[in-house]
Amino acid sequence: VNLIVLTSSELNEDGHVLLRDARAVHITRVLKAQAGQPLRVGILDGPIGTGTVSSITNDGVTLRCAFDSDAPLRPKLDLMLALPRPKVMRRLWAQLAAIGVGRIIITNATRVERNYFDTHVLEEAVYRPLLIEGLQQAGDTRLPVVSVHRRFKVLVEDELDGMVEPGLRLVADPRGEMAVTAIVRQHAPSRSVVAVGPEGGWTGFEIGLLTRHGFRLASMGQRTLRVDTACLSLLALVHDAVRDS
Amino acid sequence: VNLIVLTSSELNEDGHVLLRDARAVHITRVLKAQAGQPLRVGILDGPIGTGTVSSITNDGVTLRCAFDSDAPLRPKLDLMLALPRPKVMRRLWAQLAAIGVGRIIITNATRVERNYFDTHVLEEAVYRPLLIEGLQQAGDTRLPVVSVHRRFKVLVEDELDGMVEPGLRLVADPRGEMAVTAIVRQHAPSRSVVAVGPEGGWTGFEIGLLTRHGFRLASMGQRTLRVDTACLSLLALVHDAVRDS
Repeated sequence: VNLIVLTSSELNEDGHVLLRDARAVHITRVLKAQAGQPLRVGILDGPIGTGTVSSITNDGVTLRCAFDSDAPLRPKLDLMLALPRPKVMRRLWAQLAAIGVGRIIITNATRVERNYFDTHVLEEAVYRPLLIEGLQQAGDTRLPVVSVHRRFKVLVEDELDGMVEPGLRLVADPRGEMAVTAIVRQHAPSRSVVAVGPEGGWTGFEIGLLTRHGFRLASMGQRTLRVDTACLSLLALVHDAVRDS
Repeated sequence: VNLIVLTSSELNEDGHVLLRDARAVHITRVLKAQAGQPLRVGILDGPIGTGTVSSITNDGVTLRCAFDSDAPLRPKLDLMLALPRPKVMRRLWAQLAAIGVGRIIITNATRVERNYFDTHVLEEAVYRPLLIEGLQQAGDTRLPVVSVHRRFKVLVEDELDGMVEPGLRLVADPRGEMAVTAIVRQHAPSRSVVAVGPEGGWTGFEIGLLTRHGFRLASMGQRTLRVDTACLSLLALVHDAVRDS
């Protein structure tokens, strides 16, 4: 944990917060903090600052917080992800928040098994703590906005334009001829959305629909990666190419 | 699975192989293969070809194999990794083999907990099947060469030069000023080795030792990533930059 993330409702008027949950355990057992020690704290979707340990008792850990900077910028990259196996999705939440995405748009696709949508890992009560875990790792406060879409065609045709700002749209697919980073550097986009398909890939119909709605086919090389590996690799490449352009 | 990986000892003289293990289950249940169907097969550390299903019985699945291409090239990228928590290491094996590394050099470091080295995930019987799983995913046959080193200083000073071919040496560290991809594109190396530190980072001594032995400090941006995410991101960036240069 490189940042303790608080919600604004946890802070009292004079900037104190009493922590009793896993964060308190982390502060005492892992960070081995003492009274007077300054820790990096942030408010969810808000600014980052310093929380000085004012007391550690059986009741919990009290921090006196002061926030001096603006909220971090929302990552300039959104992800459209065909829902992977629940076990894989569970592992991805924290990693996606850590690597940095503005939106996580979970979608159905032909090669997604229907029962995947019944999983608990799509419940906010499950994924929200995992996303916050990722933010605490990365030192960010911007909670990715999550939405779940069971109708791929409706998503792409009717909903997407209202959800993501104009920018570069990429879909990683073996049919792509140009490398991800080459496309990103050519466009130097202010925002990007990247689409990652299911384990068996997008169908021809789905690729056609995506390309008709502005997605460019991008290649990630010859190796076929597992969805989670592909997803993280693709986000790393786009983040890096955007920083670089 | 995009490639069924066999070992050369499994093949009989006329190129037949009888599979009874998880590969047979995968062929019948997931691929739902029928007699006569061609499947992509490869020999571990050897060539890739076609295995035609000749029979499916209670005894197993028999393939008639023909290999037509040379063995794939060994990935031009080696990884030096400070041993992460066993749970993380277990998950990494298949992903590292899938993304493609020539060598996996596991090392101790100051911020690695000593008892991590007692884990079963460093036993060949555990990691070898996981590496092969990654190869089958990626369609490669080149098994990464694994070595485990409990003495970091001895590794860097005495052993490394004999293990990795000359090329670019990178260490990902927040102290780095130049981006990973910028360094890779500048050098256009024929081979690279990348060093990934423990969860708490390399110490100043360790960074000093690495830089004195030719490692360049490389930045991966401002976000602090979990070791597994950082590792996969870094490998994706270097692979991409090498392809691109």
